[in-house]
Amino acid sequence: MSTPLRIGIVGLGTVGAGVVKLLTDNRDLITGRAGRPIDIIAVNARDRSKDRGVDLSPYRWQDDASAMASADDIDVVIELIGGADGLAVSLARKVLENGKGFVTANKAMIAHHGGELARAAERSGSPLKYEAAVAGGIPVIKALGGGAAANEIKSLFGILNGTCNYILTEMESKGSSFDDVLQAAQALGYAEADPTFDIDGIDAAHKLAILASLAFGTELDFDHVETRGIREIETADVERAAALGYRIRLVGEARLDGDRLLQRVHPVLVPLDHPLAKVTGSLNAVVADGDFVGRLTFEGAGAGAGPTASAVVADLIDIARGEAVHAFGVPVDSQIKMQPGDHEQGIGRSYIRAAVADQPGVMADITAILRDCGVSIESLIQRGDGSDGGDVFIAIITHETQLHRTAQAVEKIAALGSVIQPPMRMDLLN
Amino acid sequence: MSTPLRIGIVGLGTVGAGVVKLLTDNRDLITGRAGRPIDIIAVNARDRSKDRGVDLSPYRWQDDASAMASADDIDVVIELIGGADGLAVSLARKVLENGKGFVTANKAMIAHHGGELARAAERSGSPLKYEAAVAGGIPVIKALGGGAAANEIKSLFGILNGTCNYILTEMESKGSSFDDVLQAAQALGYAEADPTFDIDGIDAAHKLAILASLAFGTELDFDHVETRGIREIETADVERAAALGYRIRLVGEARLDGDRLLQRVHPVLVPLDHPLAKVTGSLNAVVADGDFVGRLTFEGAGAGAGPTASAVVADLIDIARGEAVHAFGVPVDSQIKMQPGDHEQGIGRSYIRAAVADQPGVMADITAILRDCGVSIESLIQRGDGSDGGDVFIAIITHETQLHRTAQAVEKIAALGSVIQPPMRMDLLN
Repeated sequence: MSTPLRIGIVGLGTVGAGVVKLLTDNRDLITGRAGRPIDIIAVNARDRSKDRGVDLSPYRWQDDASAMASADDIDVVIELIGGADGLAVSLARKVLENGKGFVTANKAMIAHHGGELARAAERSGSPLKYEAAVAGGIPVIKALGGGAAANEIKSLFGILNGTCNYILTEMESKGSSFDDVLQAAQALGYAEADPTFDIDGIDAAHKLAILASLAFGTELDFDHVETRGIREIETADVERAAALGYRIRLVGEARLDGDRLLQRVHPVLVPLDHPLAKVTGSLNAVVADGDFVGRLTFEGAGAGAGPTASAVVADLIDIARGEAVHAFGVPVDSQIKMQPGDHEQGIGRSYIRAAVADQPGVMADITAILRDCGVSIESLIQRGDGSDGGDVFIAIITHETQLHRTAQAVEKIAALGSVIQPPMRMDLLN
Repeated sequence: MSTPLRIGIVGLGTVGAGVVKLLTDNRDLITGRAGRPIDIIAVNARDRSKDRGVDLSPYRWQDDASAMASADDIDVVIELIGGADGLAVSLARKVLENGKGFVTANKAMIAHHGGELARAAERSGSPLKYEAAVAGGIPVIKALGGGAAANEIKSLFGILNGTCNYILTEMESKGSSFDDVLQAAQALGYAEADPTFDIDGIDAAHKLAILASLAFGTELDFDHVETRGIREIETADVERAAALGYRIRLVGEARLDGDRLLQRVHPVLVPLDHPLAKVTGSLNAVVADGDFVGRLTFEGAGAGAGPTASAVVADLIDIARGEAVHAFGVPVDSQIKMQPGDHEQGIGRSYIRAAVADQPGVMADITAILRDCGVSIESLIQRGDGSDGGDVFIAIITHETQLHRTAQAVEKIAALGSVIQPPMRMDLLN
């Protein structure tokens, strides 16, 4: 029981330094709970000279990360460099082929190559773990793979990207524009210099595809996650949504419908009293519905050095304890391959916003289009911009209908001559 | 991998029948995730003839429950009969001594005998698991023992009793009295015929003591959980709390303060926008603060056949997978023994309610007492009962102060001649 678990860390950014700090600060506690010490043997990063705020002198500096994969004195390699391909995935392959454990926070790599890597792990009987890849410090991978493992889970949804949630709640509370909040977030380090992965929903889509595979026992299918980000959301949308009793959240949703798997990341309107409406700032939340357990909700910090390090070290503790679970709960070969579903064939309610010229007959045109498409209006706000003959901003909430009808209506509204800015649709959370 | 895990079930009430149903309905899924089948071999209950809505004919009926402890064809015994002592604990001892696994939903037994049973499990190297004993279907034992295991946790709190939460939220939404809601809950089967354990906070105290031991690595100390239930809460308290911006919840709180362990179950006022204020009906929620992960919140069904069975079977899946974790995360002998703390030595804010005679000088007397004790008033509602010369109901929220001062003030107010009903104090959630 007292043989240490010997680890190598590749990547010493914020999270890597956080893992070093956590393993050092809480060493005794971790040894007690893991049943044996977890010792850092070697570390690797691009720049050796950089001050990372942690003492790296006790560890071997390994210039060649991939050498860790074959180092005799390393049991587990932690990969914290990121990127779907390149060094991360070649390292993962090598580590798992050599029968060592592999722990990662790399959601892009798991979303793209999780199946292949899980198969490699099964072949060599070595653990592949990625708790830190989804929802930061929230132990949702363990909860779905273990705590809720007796349940058939047919649907899950959640707020999976802290940057988007921070931006949306800042727009909400301060009335600021998307661009202003994004710039402020970048200055504070809450958003990346290139925020594409976050604000276009790709990061959340990576996480959603991983959660869906684990929860449903289906093959990973990142390519069929319908993904839409938050760039097109205006302050006026946030305000109109609030006036109608909703908040806007970037939500990832996945559910099974017969032999189809529906996966979608998109900005949705959630009622003010819905649990997700209360998830503010950079928090994450995941909600899963099991057939026996009912609804489970998990909430916590979705990113940051401390929470992510907490998830990485929880994986190490599992490995130190000798826990042996398939990376996706079941053997890769027993995962079910599903056809992608089409959300537009389902039913739901939507928010439609359009800016139109303040001229007679515009509302008659729009409401006639909705009627002709079979979409009925639940509520509507029309407000001018205050200037004579200026634009009018229209926000509509529809009753439940087939979403392809709503899509058709939006297309027809876009073609009206009086429409100044193309209409935008967001669905309401089901 | 395909050797079945063979189980015996002792106790076939709602939860026992739920476990049979879950293992039957989700058999393929559970086999896939557990890596091998989980087979029910034998069952036991007091009354063989009773219809439990599940087919028990495939299983051996074992008249003597304790014979399961030595049956060669049983690997794990599930105990679902309840009770801190008696058959439950003698069965547990025998099962663990014989090197078999023991899975239970019995919070009273674990709170009272968890240390002794964990030691027996360590001696024989057999698993002792009790996920279902705390917070029903929410996998909080696994979350604290695994997902958050890298963290030093210094405080946790939560809503741990669904019956009390149901009663309080019904009083809130319907304005009904405690007695009326309790009777209705009993008629619906939401509350036991003898509701003492629930409404006096004992059930929540059992769960809190277990959570504290697991989260802090301290010895179980149920005897020092300060416990108070919800019997004394009146509709007027619920209304006054709402008018002042609060809801009343029965909350279990535990935290470390130096070498002291503070554990308390009591009705508290929580601000309307606090996450616990939104936990309604029979839901449970647990919040834990870790030094690296920050705040984690878990919410779900706290009771019921399905959720409890989900937790029991999750434990079986862990055992089937060969997972070997100490029952309380660390060996019993390495648990820390703490001194009990005294909440009254801490600081906090309180709600004080009193019914007084509508006569001159009463308010002057009460406010003078508070001033003399060093307790300052943040808000106060005084309202007559509408009749001439009738009683006056006073509700006060104090500013933060040392709680022993507040206690002293309440004692002095109780001694006033004008006080018709002894004053009642509830603290605000810190």
